[in-house]
Amino acid sequence: MAQTVLPDADALFEDLQAVRDRAPLVHNITNFVVMNFSANALLAVGASPVMAHAHDEVCDMVGIAQALVLNIGTLEPAWMQSMELALPAARARGIPVVLDPVGAGATPYRNVALASLLRSGAPTVVRGNASEVMSVAGLASRTRGVDSAAGSNEALDAARALASDLGAVVCVSGADDHVLDAGGRHAVLSNGHPWMTRVTGVGCSASALVGAFAAVQADAWRATLAAMACLGVVGELAAERTQAAGAGVGRLQIELLDGLHLLSREDFSRRLRLRHVHA
Amino acid sequence: MAQTVLPDADALFEDLQAVRDRAPLVHNITNFVVMNFSANALLAVGASPVMAHAHDEVCDMVGIAQALVLNIGTLEPAWMQSMELALPAARARGIPVVLDPVGAGATPYRNVALASLLRSGAPTVVRGNASEVMSVAGLASRTRGVDSAAGSNEALDAARALASDLGAVVCVSGADDHVLDAGGRHAVLSNGHPWMTRVTGVGCSASALVGAFAAVQADAWRATLAAMACLGVVGELAAERTQAAGAGVGRLQIELLDGLHLLSREDFSRRLRLRHVHA
Amino acid sequence: MAQTVLPDADALFEDLQAVRDRAPLVHNITNFVVMNFSANALLAVGASPVMAHAHDEVCDMVGIAQALVLNIGTLEPAWMQSMELALPAARARGIPVVLDPVGAGATPYRNVALASLLRSGAPTVVRGNASEVMSVAGLASRTRGVDSAAGSNEALDAARALASDLGAVVCVSGADDHVLDAGGRHAVLSNGHPWMTRVTGVGCSASALVGAFAAVQADAWRATLAAMACLGVVGELAAERTQAAGAGVGRLQIELLDGLHLLSREDFSRRLRLRHVHA
Repeated sequence: MAQTVLPDADALFEDLQAVRDRAPLVHNITNFVVMNFSANALLAVGASPVMAHAHDEVCDMVGIAQALVLNIGTLEPAWMQSMELALPAARARGIPVVLDPVGAGATPYRNVALASLLRSGAPTVVRGNASEVMSVAGLASRTRGVDSAAGSNEALDAARALASDLGAVVCVSGADDHVLDAGGRHAVLSNGHPWMTRVTGVGCSASALVGAFAAVQADAWRATLAAMACLGVVGELAAERTQAAGAGVGRLQIELLDGLHLLSREDFSRRLRLRHVHA
Repeated sequence: MAQTVLPDADALFEDLQAVRDRAPLVHNITNFVVMNFSANALLAVGASPVMAHAHDEVCDMVGIAQALVLNIGTLEPAWMQSMELALPAARARGIPVVLDPVGAGATPYRNVALASLLRSGAPTVVRGNASEVMSVAGLASRTRGVDSAAGSNEALDAARALASDLGAVVCVSGADDHVLDAGGRHAVLSNGHPWMTRVTGVGCSASALVGAFAAVQADAWRATLAAMACLGVVGELAAERTQAAGAGVGRLQIELLDGLHLLSREDFSRRLRLRHVHA
Repeated sequence: MAQTVLPDADALFEDLQAVRDRAPLVHNITNFVVMNFSANALLAVGASPVMAHAHDEVCDMVGIAQALVLNIGTLEPAWMQSMELALPAARARGIPVVLDPVGAGATPYRNVALASLLRSGAPTVVRGNASEVMSVAGLASRTRGVDSAAGSNEALDAARALASDLGAVVCVSGADDHVLDAGGRHAVLSNGHPWMTRVTGVGCSASALVGAFAAVQADAWRATLAAMACLGVVGELAAERTQAAGAGVGRLQIELLDGLHLLSREDFSRRLRLRHVHA
């Protein structure tokens, strides 16, 4: 497999600049817990959020959006139907679709719902933590159970399989963020801070930001990389600023939004920790 | 048409003082994205928010509220039914009803839902941005299409027509906020700051605040003016404070709530930029 | 009745430490307004929140949780059904159930829904303000109407009756927080600050925190005491810090989360105001 050619910090920052300049409309069908924070994260980064789920308008809203973000956090049947209407409509229009499989694997219903959603179409990007990605990979391919994977590379094997099965970009979030695509590209970001997991909706907002970046950058792998890089750098700067002030995870929430709003090319370039992985 | 007699800053601040003193109960049927921020904005200004939408209790809740605020942001059929039950119940009780037609015109369903809602009764105040007001005006009057309006006064012509059709106060929000009524009064507020559009729910909270002010000030035009003036002054002070601290739109959210809580008569009077428009 | 033996500050702080160490999974079926703040409060204190309400997964989610928190704030029939499925499932598993009867008594529907919920099982802890507790007590016992109670002890009489009827811990929140159980233990906390009522969801978050503490402390009365004590101390420290900074209730929201995150044994011990009440 060919060596992954990594975009440099300047190129990734151009994608942020494009979001700020073009303010893409990002249509979110997401969970009740994070709607407010996701909308604020999108506004902070320069995008324009819309949340709409009514069956009678969801396809029309897709029709004016530049990206669609689906998040199953507080799923219920009527909301899953909204997603199953919106996903194929977005693919038919050619706009990127980001899927955040929150809690995949936690309950049988969640798996049934995700499997049904994936039958309605393939997302452009799947972003989740290791166990969520492994669970979705198992649903996307009956013949390749995640149980067969083993060791420390379990989630990455599942991510590669999922990318291949769906023809999608897959991002496995964690201390390191892995971004893979079906063509074998694989990059790793090592920014971020453990406190980011102590603010609800940071992961969900990462998915929303991927939607915003994919709306302005046609290479969905690079768009995912740029979005995760921005959030990772913003997160570690925000956590440092919060700790320097003697504050905690309440303040962090605010610093994260401020950071998305004000992130400079200098801070981004200086902080970015990005490497590729040999296939 | 008679010259508009403008209330002065002291009179408008009296209305804020009345909200603080009387803590009116404001019943909101609003969207999922802004529920938290709207409730906090109402609490900050001194009002008492309640959110309730169950068909079996919505009229009883109207029965103990001093104002009703309807917001169609994340509309769906069951929630529209809640609004169609609550609106006539509120009018029958004589309490003010504020309608925020979020996203009016964005999808056909949104227009159908709004038209149906308007058939259930007329709101006391409609507050939206220019395109939302134009869209609602088109729905309220089939014979006067918004397409016939033109030029920079397009939204104001629509607002005047809507005020007349509904017998309502209409507020067109933007860089300037226009507040008109069916009797030909028309005032313009020039406070605020562009960053206010970068925090989700500020517009929706404006509508909630109009509800709180209309609960304590029987002249709905003046109540709308007072609410929009307070939010506008608070917004520009908050943005200045945020920028002086080198912070961004995350911090702005907090400064807005602090400002609503602590706004002084001195700051309000010194900052208010209010003028009337000759009919 | 035996004298109440009060745990000391060190013992209560151990319960906070246990939450921080063990990060219990707290399953919340709660209202739309406070979901985000409740999740952030749980994360700040060190617990792990999950929000899920789909009928097809609610029992499975209970099956992996260490506590269940039910909050009827923006109730509707489908959500009440979720709670009626989850409550007996949680009791069958032996995990604690906290009920926050938001707005009990405000409308007939709310009372019907609560009565139906209580028929599905008894919560381990009920936490509400005086009027909510009195209302629930009236529903739990037809033969002992709250109307018969009188004077300043009205809510406490109702709380004692409710504790006895349900075999539950009852917490009556207010300027003082009263924590009673069916065995006659009764403690009073006098921490907190009036501004805490000006941030939406602080009461609801108190209930969520009780769930987290009850997940790690088998004595539900002591767990409730510990949770309310932590929030009370955090609240008064946060309000003092907010006021010292010349800020308002927006900032308070952030200081509350920071305080839950960073509360020290020293501040807790120095500030705790706890006394018992002779039965």
